[in-house]
Amino acid sequence: MTAVSPLAPATLPALPVVAGVRLAALNCGIRYKGRPDLMVAELAPGTTVAGVFTRSLTASAPVLWCRKVVAGGRGRVVVCNSGNANAFTGSVGEAAVRRTVDRAATVMGCTPEEVLVASTGTIGQPLPDHKITENLAAAAARLDAGAWADAARAIMTTDTFPKAATRTAVIDGVTVTINGIAKGSGMIAPDMATMLSFVFTDAAIGPRALQALLAKGAETSFNSITVDSDTSTSDSLLLFATGAAGNAPIEDAGDPRLRDFRRKLDTLLLELAHQVVRDGEGASKFVTITVTGAASRRAAKRIGMAIANSPLVKTAIAGEDANWGRIVMAVGKAGERAERDRLGIRIGGVQVAAGGEVVPGYDEAPVTAHMKGQDILVEVDVGVGRGRATVWTCDLTHGYIDINGSYRT
Amino acid sequence: MTAVSPLAPATLPALPVVAGVRLAALNCGIRYKGRPDLMVAELAPGTTVAGVFTRSLTASAPVLWCRKVVAGGRGRVVVCNSGNANAFTGSVGEAAVRRTVDRAATVMGCTPEEVLVASTGTIGQPLPDHKITENLAAAAARLDAGAWADAARAIMTTDTFPKAATRTAVIDGVTVTINGIAKGSGMIAPDMATMLSFVFTDAAIGPRALQALLAKGAETSFNSITVDSDTSTSDSLLLFATGAAGNAPIEDAGDPRLRDFRRKLDTLLLELAHQVVRDGEGASKFVTITVTGAASRRAAKRIGMAIANSPLVKTAIAGEDANWGRIVMAVGKAGERAERDRLGIRIGGVQVAAGGEVVPGYDEAPVTAHMKGQDILVEVDVGVGRGRATVWTCDLTHGYIDINGSYRT
Repeated sequence: MTAVSPLAPATLPALPVVAGVRLAALNCGIRYKGRPDLMVAELAPGTTVAGVFTRSLTASAPVLWCRKVVAGGRGRVVVCNSGNANAFTGSVGEAAVRRTVDRAATVMGCTPEEVLVASTGTIGQPLPDHKITENLAAAAARLDAGAWADAARAIMTTDTFPKAATRTAVIDGVTVTINGIAKGSGMIAPDMATMLSFVFTDAAIGPRALQALLAKGAETSFNSITVDSDTSTSDSLLLFATGAAGNAPIEDAGDPRLRDFRRKLDTLLLELAHQVVRDGEGASKFVTITVTGAASRRAAKRIGMAIANSPLVKTAIAGEDANWGRIVMAVGKAGERAERDRLGIRIGGVQVAAGGEVVPGYDEAPVTAHMKGQDILVEVDVGVGRGRATVWTCDLTHGYIDINGSYRT
Repeated sequence: MTAVSPLAPATLPALPVVAGVRLAALNCGIRYKGRPDLMVAELAPGTTVAGVFTRSLTASAPVLWCRKVVAGGRGRVVVCNSGNANAFTGSVGEAAVRRTVDRAATVMGCTPEEVLVASTGTIGQPLPDHKITENLAAAAARLDAGAWADAARAIMTTDTFPKAATRTAVIDGVTVTINGIAKGSGMIAPDMATMLSFVFTDAAIGPRALQALLAKGAETSFNSITVDSDTSTSDSLLLFATGAAGNAPIEDAGDPRLRDFRRKLDTLLLELAHQVVRDGEGASKFVTITVTGAASRRAAKRIGMAIANSPLVKTAIAGEDANWGRIVMAVGKAGERAERDRLGIRIGGVQVAAGGEVVPGYDEAPVTAHMKGQDILVEVDVGVGRGRATVWTCDLTHGYIDINGSYRT
């Protein structure tokens, strides 16, 4: 067991009820003992669903299934286990998904095409799905509208803290609630790099609008974080809208009545994404990288990610070294338009380099003091356009090597 | 000081004379004391030159200069210093290059446009080029056709061993010699990730043919290795052909008389590139990754690099863990065509996974034994085409964090 990440929030927020959502968490014994490892969520009839999934070409069996369900736009049940990812398990893995959704449909009273599944844990081992299916009736019996903290814990692998966030928003005069839980990349046993997040609201929003809201929100939150540049076979972000709050259903993501909801959803997704970074393997610093002046927003993000994924930048931050030469290097390798003689860099708000060279009389002392803190701010101005983006990462420490270099068994 | 890499070759090969090449190495005191840090090479009149440089958009001032010289096809002098990269130094850096090449041209009796420069060391600090220019006359006085080992040492930054290789080849009945030296990524002081390599032959080969040979050879050697996915601002590979061996000059890279030379040049470049990997920061394992069955050669290389650059794969190898699930993950994130159910993986020659799942009755014992060795072999068959490529890397260890997380000063 590792200690809780030094970057963990002080407390787990208390999540209110979301009308139309009930949850259960229990131990089914796939891998973990003495803690829940199975989460079931029941959604009211009529609930719409949206999803954003890993872009991996070796995506897991649950991801392949969920893509189909999300295309249908309706979801009634989520079944999520930790301890085994059911990834790279071939037709055996697909059969396990099929048995799980069939049994869940029977127990919960819906069609299999309304059941979403997620699995996180070891890659390449057959999922003992009977441990799930045998426990679905027990899970159904204990569904509870207040079981958010247990649900957040059940989806953890070796995360060092449970992750949750909540917001309220007003749609057309009606107050709605948004709750989200997530798991990230706090892993001791390797192969457990999956990011999962489930977000629930009682707003009434049609599936196409919901998908558009989620895709846009994911781009500047979960798709703008990186721990180590590796992409899981199982990453899944699901958003459910039960409609129980009673607002008039909204079908268009651009509807002005969604303005407050969109803003609250975006900040909730960002809060969850930041919690994933704060539980990054071995993380000791939370790093914000803002890129401005790039050729486009996409270019700015790519430059930001090149900096955030650079092992040389990440190890320098771990060593509390304001090593801006490595930031120059990362900008240069990003493959986006950049001009050396226009590049500017600020660290901790202090201008370090401008116009392609170190600023005259550069005093490193305040920058070094900033590097000793837990929250590191890097700002890069590329000087060629108006594109901007912010990405978040953590440092690369001995803890990462310890966690990932240890043998699986 | 770190110990010599455990992956270092047993001895530095003795390099013979290359007719038309003389070298000098001395200390000019830019950063290091008690060891040479300035290398000067003199090439006979008529020597042709080819070059392959970093693709970084923040390339150093010496790289920008050398690109122009190589376009001219003729080279008479190389001046290389270690300890300062003269990168991200703006117009000050360009002026330093100009003073260096002007002085070298005067001392050596050629035009500035025939002088190539290379600098390796800290990024972002003005180069004290007077320490170079003041020493060029002394260097010219001690030029020696046998000073290969000293030259290999002078270009080191914190490499743990000097790197050199030699070949002979026959062109049209004439025996020619090829010598190469390189420096790599064995760095304690950060910012010194530059890869430099200088290769010299007495063959008579025209500049266009020489450039084609070098570009092709670099693709499967220096451009097929990675230590940590970061790209230096200063990487430079230069090939000089003095013509002193006396073969009839060859102007076309496809000329059948170059067959033996091409083969020997390719193996020399590969030997030097492997030495760079073997001196990778913190390296304890030398890893060969062969990808077959990809959609194209380019796709195979990209998949191979995704595996080679994955921190999760590299830490697993450091931990002697045959964690093939992470290889699946890396194939999936590479962005090239792959089909989960056709993917096969061999480690140390043992089939681990086939047809998208672990092989029946998989016995991990022989694979684990292989992982305990120093030379690790990973073979991936993507199963969708005929593209193949091999790339080389090292593992990611605590040593890497130690080396790169320590403060620069």
